[in-house]
Amino acid sequence: MSDVIVNKPEDIQSQVQEAVAAIAARETVGNVYLAACGGSFAVLGPAKYVLDHESEAIAAHHLNANEFIHRGPKGLGAKSVVITCSHSGTTPETVNAAAYGREHGALVIAITNDPASPLAQNADQVVTYVHGPDIDLHDSSEGVLYRIVFGLLAEREGNTKGQALDASLSALNPVLAAVRAGNVDVADAWGRAHKKHELVYTMGSGSNFHEAYAFSICLLQEMQWMHSAAIHAGEYFHGPFEITDTDVPFIVLVGNGETRPLDERGVNFVSKYSDDVVVLDAESLDLSEVAEDLRGYLSVIVFGKWLRMYADALADHRGHPLSVRRYMWRMEY
Amino acid sequence: MSDVIVNKPEDIQSQVQEAVAAIAARETVGNVYLAACGGSFAVLGPAKYVLDHESEAIAAHHLNANEFIHRGPKGLGAKSVVITCSHSGTTPETVNAAAYGREHGALVIAITNDPASPLAQNADQVVTYVHGPDIDLHDSSEGVLYRIVFGLLAEREGNTKGQALDASLSALNPVLAAVRAGNVDVADAWGRAHKKHELVYTMGSGSNFHEAYAFSICLLQEMQWMHSAAIHAGEYFHGPFEITDTDVPFIVLVGNGETRPLDERGVNFVSKYSDDVVVLDAESLDLSEVAEDLRGYLSVIVFGKWLRMYADALADHRGHPLSVRRYMWRMEY
Repeated sequence: MSDVIVNKPEDIQSQVQEAVAAIAARETVGNVYLAACGGSFAVLGPAKYVLDHESEAIAAHHLNANEFIHRGPKGLGAKSVVITCSHSGTTPETVNAAAYGREHGALVIAITNDPASPLAQNADQVVTYVHGPDIDLHDSSEGVLYRIVFGLLAEREGNTKGQALDASLSALNPVLAAVRAGNVDVADAWGRAHKKHELVYTMGSGSNFHEAYAFSICLLQEMQWMHSAAIHAGEYFHGPFEITDTDVPFIVLVGNGETRPLDERGVNFVSKYSDDVVVLDAESLDLSEVAEDLRGYLSVIVFGKWLRMYADALADHRGHPLSVRRYMWRMEY
Repeated sequence: MSDVIVNKPEDIQSQVQEAVAAIAARETVGNVYLAACGGSFAVLGPAKYVLDHESEAIAAHHLNANEFIHRGPKGLGAKSVVITCSHSGTTPETVNAAAYGREHGALVIAITNDPASPLAQNADQVVTYVHGPDIDLHDSSEGVLYRIVFGLLAEREGNTKGQALDASLSALNPVLAAVRAGNVDVADAWGRAHKKHELVYTMGSGSNFHEAYAFSICLLQEMQWMHSAAIHAGEYFHGPFEITDTDVPFIVLVGNGETRPLDERGVNFVSKYSDDVVVLDAESLDLSEVAEDLRGYLSVIVFGKWLRMYADALADHRGHPLSVRRYMWRMEY
């Protein structure tokens, strides 16, 4: 089982370096396809944000792995990098996406916990990571993704922002520790108050939208069988806001990057018409040890673990462990 | 008010031709940004699908208008086409997106019902359309979008698929008429059966995903104050499917394009574990008069109107007209 694998920081570092070297060795890099499923699909989302914001020449596309394969993007070819992600490395659609990328001449990178998995075997470059509650975030799946992406930007375009990335990722560890120390009671109280609720909405924008999505589809729908939708803060005012009411619960991620005004506008409105709003604000974090021009990108990593506290509390009060499934892994589908 | 404007087919045709000529006159077209809000954001989505599938060199990005502005894509510039859409042409974020695109040297096209609107005034090219229940779909917002996109593909890359587009769009009119004639009772029965429901999920993939999204956020959340989420059929199996239960209602769009296998897989599973599934299948439509290589792209236009029948029935049985709002247009936000 992949869950007993513990990847070593020095191996991860070599793998990142090799992946970046392979990107550097390509004749051209014109686009990047980020293809995965579910929680891993969400992990890859912020990479499109970074590439959109940082690169003039490299187009990023973020697609569910099976959509990617069937859509058949014509831009996929020798000038493409395909980044895939699957924890076990066995997700069939993601394994197929890697194979599909290689068939089309792309450089395929697999981010996976298991370096011997089918996904790894179908990739040109394998980058592993560490996982669990008490890891060095520098070596998390989100951390290695950013190390690859900023490595790509450095090699292909001379972008220097990644020089501070290693130290900035490690600087997230005490930030997360502080979040955990300061929010046990508030998360617990929220879990208790919502144990009989059937639906919780999440909201976010920019790179953080993907953590709102992950919480909605993985933690709430998958692991708690609770109804949910992730609402993009920019879209909220063009339809979804009409379901806002005094008793409709929301969790809103307020980022510290360029799209913060969208989140603030969402919070201002939803807080006026719902009495049940949790606001997680990246500006409340002490990010002084994180390089200033990386802060907006990196807060998503803290948000993921911060949200997890709310899921843990909910699971506890509902007597429904996060590990329970009724369909996943239990049948063919 | 823009609602009394009735744009003429010959004017629309001239506007499309001028927009395509302006695209043809650009020195380079390297990317297309599709930026709008809510229902208009959904209208633009299928254009990314078409460009992804048809073009090797032109990268398409589909972003909420406010996300687009704040994200600040570095690829936006003289080699960009920005396509915006707003019915009234007054949506502030979309007007700003058009202005933002022009500031960066992009060619900005506005699709709007009102050729004198602020959006039109901030665009280089304005393309109007007709709207309402009994229009020629050739001149619908979705129709003019495809006419622009296939015009772009023809002019920039010699793609010939658009040659059959005008006739194929017009051929959708009798297809929709048949859908309407054959589904009054079934939509009405669904509306009656779901009048006390609080939540309905939608599902889809490929170009049709965006109609599932529009139905979810505009028809259900905005116009019926009902909870909803649009689930991507490829993502369904990686989280959301765990909320499937005997009494959880789903509406699934099964397309006739490349991603049909994703939709079929979704239907097969959801129909086994929910007793409350509506399946709208594009293969049930008589598309014999639509060019074969356009069928997969064009069914989304029928899906939009087909879904509307379910919303109309729901509104009728709930005594909640689709026009009622509690926040939109009633306050500052």
